[in-house]
Amino acid sequence: MQRALDIDRSRFADWYQAVVRDADMAETSPVRGAMVIKPWGYGVWEQIQQELDRRIKATGHENCYFPMFIPLSFIAKEAEHVEGFAKEMAVVTHHRLKAIDGKLEPDPEAKLEEPLVVRPTSETIIGDAFARWVRSHRDLPLLINQWANVVRWEMRPRLFLRTTEFLWQEGHTAHATEAEAVEETRKMLEVYRSFAEDTLAMPVIAGEKPENERFPGAVHTYSIEAMMQDGKALQAGTSHFLGTHFAEAQGIKFQDDAGALTFCNTTSWGVSTRLIGGVIMTHGDDDGLRLPPAIAPRQIVVVPMLRDKPEDAEVLKYCEDLVAMLNRERAFGQPLRAFLDTKKIKSAEKRWNWVRRGAPLIVEIGPRDASNGQVTYMRRDMLRDGDKVKSIAKPRQDFLESAVQLLAEIQAGLYAEAKARLDNNIKAGVTDWNGVKDYFAGGDDDFKGWLKISWSKPTGAELDAVDNRLKSLKLTIRNAPLQQPESFAPCLFTGKPGVEEILIGRAY
Amino acid sequence: MQRALDIDRSRFADWYQAVVRDADMAETSPVRGAMVIKPWGYGVWEQIQQELDRRIKATGHENCYFPMFIPLSFIAKEAEHVEGFAKEMAVVTHHRLKAIDGKLEPDPEAKLEEPLVVRPTSETIIGDAFARWVRSHRDLPLLINQWANVVRWEMRPRLFLRTTEFLWQEGHTAHATEAEAVEETRKMLEVYRSFAEDTLAMPVIAGEKPENERFPGAVHTYSIEAMMQDGKALQAGTSHFLGTHFAEAQGIKFQDDAGALTFCNTTSWGVSTRLIGGVIMTHGDDDGLRLPPAIAPRQIVVVPMLRDKPEDAEVLKYCEDLVAMLNRERAFGQPLRAFLDTKKIKSAEKRWNWVRRGAPLIVEIGPRDASNGQVTYMRRDMLRDGDKVKSIAKPRQDFLESAVQLLAEIQAGLYAEAKARLDNNIKAGVTDWNGVKDYFAGGDDDFKGWLKISWSKPTGAELDAVDNRLKSLKLTIRNAPLQQPESFAPCLFTGKPGVEEILIGRAY
Repeated sequence: MQRALDIDRSRFADWYQAVVRDADMAETSPVRGAMVIKPWGYGVWEQIQQELDRRIKATGHENCYFPMFIPLSFIAKEAEHVEGFAKEMAVVTHHRLKAIDGKLEPDPEAKLEEPLVVRPTSETIIGDAFARWVRSHRDLPLLINQWANVVRWEMRPRLFLRTTEFLWQEGHTAHATEAEAVEETRKMLEVYRSFAEDTLAMPVIAGEKPENERFPGAVHTYSIEAMMQDGKALQAGTSHFLGTHFAEAQGIKFQDDAGALTFCNTTSWGVSTRLIGGVIMTHGDDDGLRLPPAIAPRQIVVVPMLRDKPEDAEVLKYCEDLVAMLNRERAFGQPLRAFLDTKKIKSAEKRWNWVRRGAPLIVEIGPRDASNGQVTYMRRDMLRDGDKVKSIAKPRQDFLESAVQLLAEIQAGLYAEAKARLDNNIKAGVTDWNGVKDYFAGGDDDFKGWLKISWSKPTGAELDAVDNRLKSLKLTIRNAPLQQPESFAPCLFTGKPGVEEILIGRAY
Repeated sequence: MQRALDIDRSRFADWYQAVVRDADMAETSPVRGAMVIKPWGYGVWEQIQQELDRRIKATGHENCYFPMFIPLSFIAKEAEHVEGFAKEMAVVTHHRLKAIDGKLEPDPEAKLEEPLVVRPTSETIIGDAFARWVRSHRDLPLLINQWANVVRWEMRPRLFLRTTEFLWQEGHTAHATEAEAVEETRKMLEVYRSFAEDTLAMPVIAGEKPENERFPGAVHTYSIEAMMQDGKALQAGTSHFLGTHFAEAQGIKFQDDAGALTFCNTTSWGVSTRLIGGVIMTHGDDDGLRLPPAIAPRQIVVVPMLRDKPEDAEVLKYCEDLVAMLNRERAFGQPLRAFLDTKKIKSAEKRWNWVRRGAPLIVEIGPRDASNGQVTYMRRDMLRDGDKVKSIAKPRQDFLESAVQLLAEIQAGLYAEAKARLDNNIKAGVTDWNGVKDYFAGGDDDFKGWLKISWSKPTGAELDAVDNRLKSLKLTIRNAPLQQPESFAPCLFTGKPGVEEILIGRAY
């Protein structure tokens, strides 16, 4: 059986790399840990941005842009306030280069008085602005979002999943009351959940992170967790309720109706280019990437089968008309994105390029299609019938009338497939540690899903003990799902009465 | 006469600052030279991005994303090749912070082996990728664009016009032949010209920069130059033909049809958030900003005149319906952007906020408008009749039917006004240095336009002499317009036969 990739999903980490490479999504760069996002990968990011931005604005947020350099003193202040503060950051110390003995070096005379940190996240610099912007309750809520690049030094980088520089959006909001801020935190979690499921066709579990997995300084951290095809969890988005913690450190306060100065409650929430890694590991197959049509930069690719013969002109004309007609349709609330591939390479090569890149519908038009007024196409979500590639022929009018519906079916089909995987691989009913060990036994490449277990929600040293036991099996608590049962088994770790169900698993 | 600003254009630099502040566009940040772009300013940037991105894609370019950190060795290699190489750059030297004696500092153990420079522009890092991507003539042309933040250390920062960090797009392309690369350079210049004029309503002169004003390493540099209301020039976009210069330094070569290895010809071109400064200084008036409707984040703002009385409900309902109906229209190829301002502040305050922000149409609806089925509005481009604010009342249906046309008229009117200023203030016919001195005599705040003069296009030391004379009057050569006459007066500087007309003036 000939596949479009030379590796299948049984070696998942290598398969992932092969898909990213062969789908032309991204590549490593000469800067350790930083990636080059290539046109097809960036095109997916543009679709993600566009749709998520629409949802973020529809919930009342406005976009801004804040400096990417943060004075070291801001970071130092945060470090004082925040336990678990991370220190792997890029530090700018000079503002000029100079040729010294013929070698270009940082100019010692242009050393900054105060070093600048390249933002790993922007709570401090945005909080500084909020402290200026908020005066009275009429300035609240303050609902801000930013699309930006951020830097977190990575020792073990992996394209899209963990890179030193990545792209993301970060929302930051300030509210008059705790209740409003908590509501905002949950609202944005729900925006992420519905976006992941509707647009990325990536089912997720929304829930709250345990204390030891919270964003440093947060009162509550929520996440959406997706299951990859190797069973591992991918944290695909987080939303934090920060209480008055950051507001106190940064002086974000307002005069309430009665004239009293009160600290705001703040939130922050973000998703990143990591989502693209999630899409690849959720939907890819042994032929490469399969893109949900809602985020495919090109949803229908038309490949003319040209033979350097006079009838080529007719074929090309037929293809151009087809693409023009398709592009008058609308799919997923946007103009449909059909594309005519006229690159001067063999049409068989084109087919496999688009298979590996995951274009949802690949249309091949030969002279016979053109003269018969028909369309021959492949569905990327059901590419094969056994080993053979499955081509479907339809009268052109039928294809045109069903194209939008076909894309919707592919979107729904990819979601259903991933949803079944998620649902079938969350195992409940394990009540002791041996059961946990048994479930996660076996080699690193063996598929293991998640366990849903009951616990007593320990804190402090008791939680550390739980965390250490889990770590010994390379496990982490993913989250406590928002949907909880009415009663609980005893805690698997402490034997105390259970108060919550949590998901545990291996993770990216 | 009461104006919405407490300063008028006679003190242009202070007026500019007041407009930026009172229109809520941007503000300085705690990081020297870096700005915070506020929602209204960022909203304008989003409109600019959206429309320019459409035009860049329509000319065949694809978006990518490259690392913002560039290894020092890349920069050193460029510095060797390129005369006039600028050295004011942010340099990252460490990748971790550490508490040393209770103080957070760059960790000496996390010093980078090779410092990283924050991109001032991306020719080197993108060229490195091009060298990997280009193999054969079938990979050409390679047409790439990137939207990104860049850093150039600024000693005299000014919001939007000169900031240490700014946002821009940078196009980078590689071609098989010189002719194709030159054509690309000129094509993108034309994209910038038409975008500036059609979308920003900002007339510009497209032309070629003289040798001493070229991008370091470029064979030809073209620019579009706009005239601000103080007569100064703003370089609003540049397009560079780089020849094989960068390709040779970076090894970007391809196998031609005959199998020979040949260096590519490359180009680069960019515009930045500086355009927003240009829009402000082109269209602002003594009441603040006036935004061309094509880039106004909100084109029609509806202010309900509420009085905490029972009839408020009817007014609000009427306004909501009006906004909903307006938002079903299309203007400038996009859905119309109407907005209902329900903020809990006085309606008079709202009016002046939107005047200062430059919303093209400001609608005020009171109980009488609602019950009479009419709409009362102000055109921001013709706000006053003498000193008085001019309100126009129309039956609602008439207003709805004319809204798109009104926006188009405002767009055209702003362009016409700026075009007349440009045309009337380029003075020709000055043939000697005394004439230049006379034209540019007077105080710094006095309006002076540009001179169009004839020159012999000197090079080397002869050009340096010209440059120094111009500098003594704070003048620069803006460009040699693409449209040139058939014959020329003798060179104003050298007395030799003239070969070209150039524009000289003061500039931002």
